[in-house]
Order: sequence, then structure tokens, then C-alpha cells
Amino acid sequence: MRLRNVKNKEEILQSCSLLVQNPQTYRGHWHELFANDQPIYLEIGMGKGDFIIQNAKLHPDINYIGIEKFDSVLARAIPKIPIDLKNLRIIRMDARFIEDVFDHEISQIYLNFSDPWPKKRHAFRRLTSPEFLARYDRIFQDEKRIEMKTDNAALFTYSIETLSQKGYGLFEVYLDYHEQVENIIMSEYEQRFVQRGQKVFHLFAKNR
Amino acid sequence: MRLRNVKNKEEILQSCSLLVQNPQTYRGHWHELFANDQPIYLEIGMGKGDFIIQNAKLHPDINYIGIEKFDSVLARAIPKIPIDLKNLRIIRMDARFIEDVFDHEISQIYLNFSDPWPKKRHAFRRLTSPEFLARYDRIFQDEKRIEMKTDNAALFTYSIETLSQKGYGLFEVYLDYHEQVENIIMSEYEQRFVQRGQKVFHLFAKNR
Repeated sequence: MRLRNVKNKEEILQSCSLLVQNPQTYRGHWHELFANDQPIYLEIGMGKGDFIIQNAKLHPDINYIGIEKFDSVLARAIPKIPIDLKNLRIIRMDARFIEDVFDHEISQIYLNFSDPWPKKRHAFRRLTSPEFLARYDRIFQDEKRIEMKTDNAALFTYSIETLSQKGYGLFEVYLDYHEQVENIIMSEYEQRFVQRGQKVFHLFAKNR
Repeated sequence: MRLRNVKNKEEILQSCSLLVQNPQTYRGHWHELFANDQPIYLEIGMGKGDFIIQNAKLHPDINYIGIEKFDSVLARAIPKIPIDLKNLRIIRMDARFIEDVFDHEISQIYLNFSDPWPKKRHAFRRLTSPEFLARYDRIFQDEKRIEMKTDNAALFTYSIETLSQKGYGLFEVYLDYHEQVENIIMSEYEQRFVQRGQKVFHLFAKNR
């Protein structure tokens, strides 16, 4: 993800009613914020928002929360959100602290083109590391479900192993997702990627 | 698998009471041959037999059938079989004709170090090709279960994709099985392989 600074980013962020300011205060009570019992799907690293915004529009029966740590990226996502989108919230935070914000209330996690952290000594920062999977254990409500897309073969291979060793079953494993599946909801990043003819890996992991 | 000719192979084969001579006649009736209702596990390409013989000894509550197309390989397996092993049968046959021999009566299939058939035009011969998976559909009793080991990365990757696309969930995926798991039942081939320090890939695929 290219980080271009956005000049009036603080202003944009403050203007957005869907940006949750003190997310820790909702821990264990997110369903109350949405005022319904719909399942909550979480995207970790929502980037410029295309993926989660499209999903929220398409599936009004699901609540979506996107988290993102970079202000300037969020400032690009916010202007795209339709004002009347009731089933979406966004949070500016680092995924490391996810357990401070959620408590057994998430039904599905999306990981789209996450940072591969290629160096072995940084492996614990990968969003499918055993460290992160243990954090997810504490935010998933019931069945654990993770949908992942990446262009990075090493991260994909690593994720297959860590998920499998944590007891996840792997489904819908594609090594060239866009060649084999139609009507895929894409992020901006992914669109550029696919236009260049590069391959996208996909998997869906489930653990009861 | 190195194919060394065995001189008196016909003699060895004829002497073995566990070698089933007209397997087609048992189609749909294998439980009667074993005279019990235990689940039947099938190894396709049993080679020199170490894997299936050890399994049959360890698990008297499971019936095992090994198939192998090469006479000289079978002739090396047969002398290793204990005379009183009641839960094992072997068949000399080509896996292509598996549906002529079994009819919805197999509980699990083992594929150990199968021929990778690296050329794309030979892909249909790989034991995890869509063609073979369709054959397995007609021999599995209920839940489909395939356990696979291979030293061939390309075959492993191919298998992950074909199994996944046929609706299998993938479990126990290991990219270096022997480093991560203990007490593995090995074939002769696998033992040599592991002694040389080479990696073995493993997966367990299930489909209900």
C-alpha cells in the first residue's frame, strides 16, 4: 500500500460519523452499537475501503467493521462511504490491540493483501502468525472463519501451515483466484494487480 | 520407485493367499470377504508394502486393501506380510479401473509418494486429478477422506487446488511433515528420503 499524505486528513476523520472514536468502550457490546443481532464481519487492514464498503452495500444483513492503522489511508476511504450505510463502522487502530476492542463477538475476519513481513524475525507480525491466531481466538464468537486473499506466495504458504496447525480446515483454496472465480469483490489495490495479469491467492479457513 | 525385476515373481504372487485374484467379483461385497463390518482403508500404489503392512498390524479394527500395478514391486511386498494378518488384502491392478472393483465401500484413501506426472498433458494421470477424484466419488462409502504424502511440491500444490475445488476441506497441511510430527508410519521410499534430509508434504482432505 502506497502511503501518500492527505493534507486535511484530521478534518476528514473528524467529519466521519462512522469512525468509532473510543472503540474500547464498546468491547463486548458491538451489537448494541449496531442495534441489532446481525453477525459482525471484521476486515483487518481495510486500506482505502473498497472491499468493505462494497460488501456492506451488498449485504445489509451483516454488520461490517473495518480497522486500519494509517490515518492517510483512512482519509481516502472515508469520502467513499455512502452517508446512509448503517451496517458499517471503521476504527483507526493497530490490529495488535484487537482484544482490547472485541470480546467473542466476531463471526468472520477478512485479511486482504496483508503485509507479508518477509523477514523471519518479523513473522510474529504477519496477520496469520500463531500470535495473531491466538488473538483471534478471543474475539471470535463461535465458529472461527477467516477469508484471505494475497498476492504473496510466501505469506500464503505460511498461512496455510499456521492455520492448519491451529486446527483450521482450509476451503476454496485458489492459486489463481481471478481466473477461476467470477464476480469477486476487489480492493483498489487488487484491481490494479489483476489488471497487470498477476495472480491472486485465496483461501477460506474454518475452525469449530 | 525403482523397478528392479524379481526373478520368481509369478511364483511369489501365486503363493500369497492375501492377493485377491478376481477383485471385480467382490465389488460391493468386500465386507463379506473380511467377514466383518470394519471400515475399509485403501492405499493406491502400495509399493513395497511397508506403510500398509505396518498400519494393518497397528489397527486390527480397520480393514486395509493395497493396490499396486507392478508385479515386481508386489513380489517385494508379499514376503513381508505376516501370515496371520487377517485385515489386509492386496490387489494387482491399475488404479484407473478402481470403479470396477469397489462400489461405495471405502472409508479412506492413502496416496503415498504417487507419481507426479509432471507434464501438463499427463495431468489426468495424477492420482488427485479431477478425473481420479470423480472415480473416488463412486468408491467412497460416505464421508470422503484422503490422506496424502509426497516429496513433490508441484504435485502437492496441484492436489491442494483440485481437492479444494472438488469441495474437500484440507486439514493437517504440513510442508515439512517429519520435522513437525512424530511417530509417522513410513514407507521404505520415505525412510530413505527422510534420511537424506528432504522434506515431505502432508495433507488430510475430507469431504462430506
